[in-house]
Amino acid sequence: MSTNFFTLVENQISQVEVLMKAQVNGHHPHLQVVLEHLVSSGGKRVRPAVALLTGGMLNADDDRLLKLAGSIEMLHTATLVHDDLIDGSLLRRGIPTLNAQWSPAATVLAGDYIFARAAAMAAQTDSIEVMQLFAETLATIVNGEIIQMFTSRGIASREDYFQRIYAKTASMFVLATESAALLSGVDEAVVVAVRQYGYEIGMAFQIVDDILDFTGSQSTVGKPVASDLRQGLVTLPAIYYQESHPDDEDMAAVLRGEYNHDTRMTRLVAAIRESGAIKKALDEAREFVERGLQTLENIPDSIERQALFEIGSYIVDRDV
Amino acid sequence: MSTNFFTLVENQISQVEVLMKAQVNGHHPHLQVVLEHLVSSGGKRVRPAVALLTGGMLNADDDRLLKLAGSIEMLHTATLVHDDLIDGSLLRRGIPTLNAQWSPAATVLAGDYIFARAAAMAAQTDSIEVMQLFAETLATIVNGEIIQMFTSRGIASREDYFQRIYAKTASMFVLATESAALLSGVDEAVVVAVRQYGYEIGMAFQIVDDILDFTGSQSTVGKPVASDLRQGLVTLPAIYYQESHPDDEDMAAVLRGEYNHDTRMTRLVAAIRESGAIKKALDEAREFVERGLQTLENIPDSIERQALFEIGSYIVDRDV
Repeated sequence: MSTNFFTLVENQISQVEVLMKAQVNGHHPHLQVVLEHLVSSGGKRVRPAVALLTGGMLNADDDRLLKLAGSIEMLHTATLVHDDLIDGSLLRRGIPTLNAQWSPAATVLAGDYIFARAAAMAAQTDSIEVMQLFAETLATIVNGEIIQMFTSRGIASREDYFQRIYAKTASMFVLATESAALLSGVDEAVVVAVRQYGYEIGMAFQIVDDILDFTGSQSTVGKPVASDLRQGLVTLPAIYYQESHPDDEDMAAVLRGEYNHDTRMTRLVAAIRESGAIKKALDEAREFVERGLQTLENIPDSIERQALFEIGSYIVDRDV
Repeated sequence: MSTNFFTLVENQISQVEVLMKAQVNGHHPHLQVVLEHLVSSGGKRVRPAVALLTGGMLNADDDRLLKLAGSIEMLHTATLVHDDLIDGSLLRRGIPTLNAQWSPAATVLAGDYIFARAAAMAAQTDSIEVMQLFAETLATIVNGEIIQMFTSRGIASREDYFQRIYAKTASMFVLATESAALLSGVDEAVVVAVRQYGYEIGMAFQIVDDILDFTGSQSTVGKPVASDLRQGLVTLPAIYYQESHPDDEDMAAVLRGEYNHDTRMTRLVAAIRESGAIKKALDEAREFVERGLQTLENIPDSIERQALFEIGSYIVDRDV
């Protein structure tokens, strides 16, 4: 994780983490422990990095930008707390999840608390537009999870898939870039451009995550290979495989809802891994990144802009 | 519910309900059904009524005031959805709860969604101060539930009790009155006064709810008599009883954590009901209301101010 763009915002990311941990001041000690745990076991901080770099590129106020970056990472963290509870996941990034240690009731409340603190940090940006975007993004994310729960299983459709990953991931990248621009007081055209950048690299980010779900080993990804497909969720590699192998019996069975058959699933996952579907999905991710970088064309060059370009390469090249 | 003050805001409350139901536009049809159900089975709308009357008294902008009232009722609704899930309650106001019909996972998400829409409505007030207060109030409420879950059981302490009901109920009345004042652009002194009004009547409201938990029959309250005490939560009537009967063996057992003993609990509840503790708690509630009404002393009279006075009587006299 010594990639250039991370180095550029390393110091700010540390400040964001301090801000996040300080959110519990005066509240129940258990919440302090929870937040310390979640912040310390945090991931790559790609979302706050994108917000910080976009704001840096557009000369946003430093203090408000830190609050924004914190609110986005807190929002991300809150959704993970409830997701892990809902999925019954006991590990994330190799570290026990909150629901592995707390009762479901306490985990629901802890997630709610982190949502509340995320909203409070968003309000601290002092921008009503950021606040509105924050609230709409939260609704989009949750609506996406509801769709996934009630509607998406066993559906091999690019349209469904792209809507799903927009709600799940790209919407938060859009929140990061658009909000950073709103804090910078730039022209509407620039807001639209960086918003589009956020959308494109956010989509690419999730596609690559979904590829890694197939190509990674259980030990690197921290969950069983093809964990989505094993729950009936069809991601881009499986969709491409299905399109090029319309008569595959194993795939047909999964689409009928029979995804608990171990031998069949193992055979199907191996077939997808060995097919051209992985490369095709990766090409699609590269195209998203390419379009994302193009949106920054008319923005004056800076080290932050360079870093936003580098993030594109990082997204498609990490561990694939 | 034909009390005067409700009549005064009846029309606005209907508009608030329309606004609340419209929040799901474009999202998953299940969410539309959920919101219709929750809004239609809503309670007495005391919180939005208080916000609307305070704003009316202080000449807040009508449109922003409706958004505020809606955001507060949505926030209240969202907390109830997660509370009922956590408590495993299957009925509320005689109507099946969401968790009686949906899986725990779907109920968590539905609550999250309603939080998101509450935040979006709060942002629509176009006031960053309201938004900040909204987010802080949500954190206060959830922190209070965490304290209740981890710390409060078996504690007969007025201090713990008052902190608990502030977090659970009075904080939302404060949100209603203070936010309405913030939208009205009035002097700080007026903001402080109506904030205090919200605090006092909110505290009274919860004390009376806790009295009704003892005095109501299961059919009117919709849950077993003394449901809090049966879960080890000691409310004001029980605290007063304990203070005047320090040697009561049944009470001592409950405070030790033995609140699953049916015969003992039935005997204790009967003793509390027949003691002077109920009247003493009601007197305490009346004192809160009295202090609340005094805070409005220096505000010019109006029909809304009169209605805020009436709410005080309504709170202590309903069904007691």
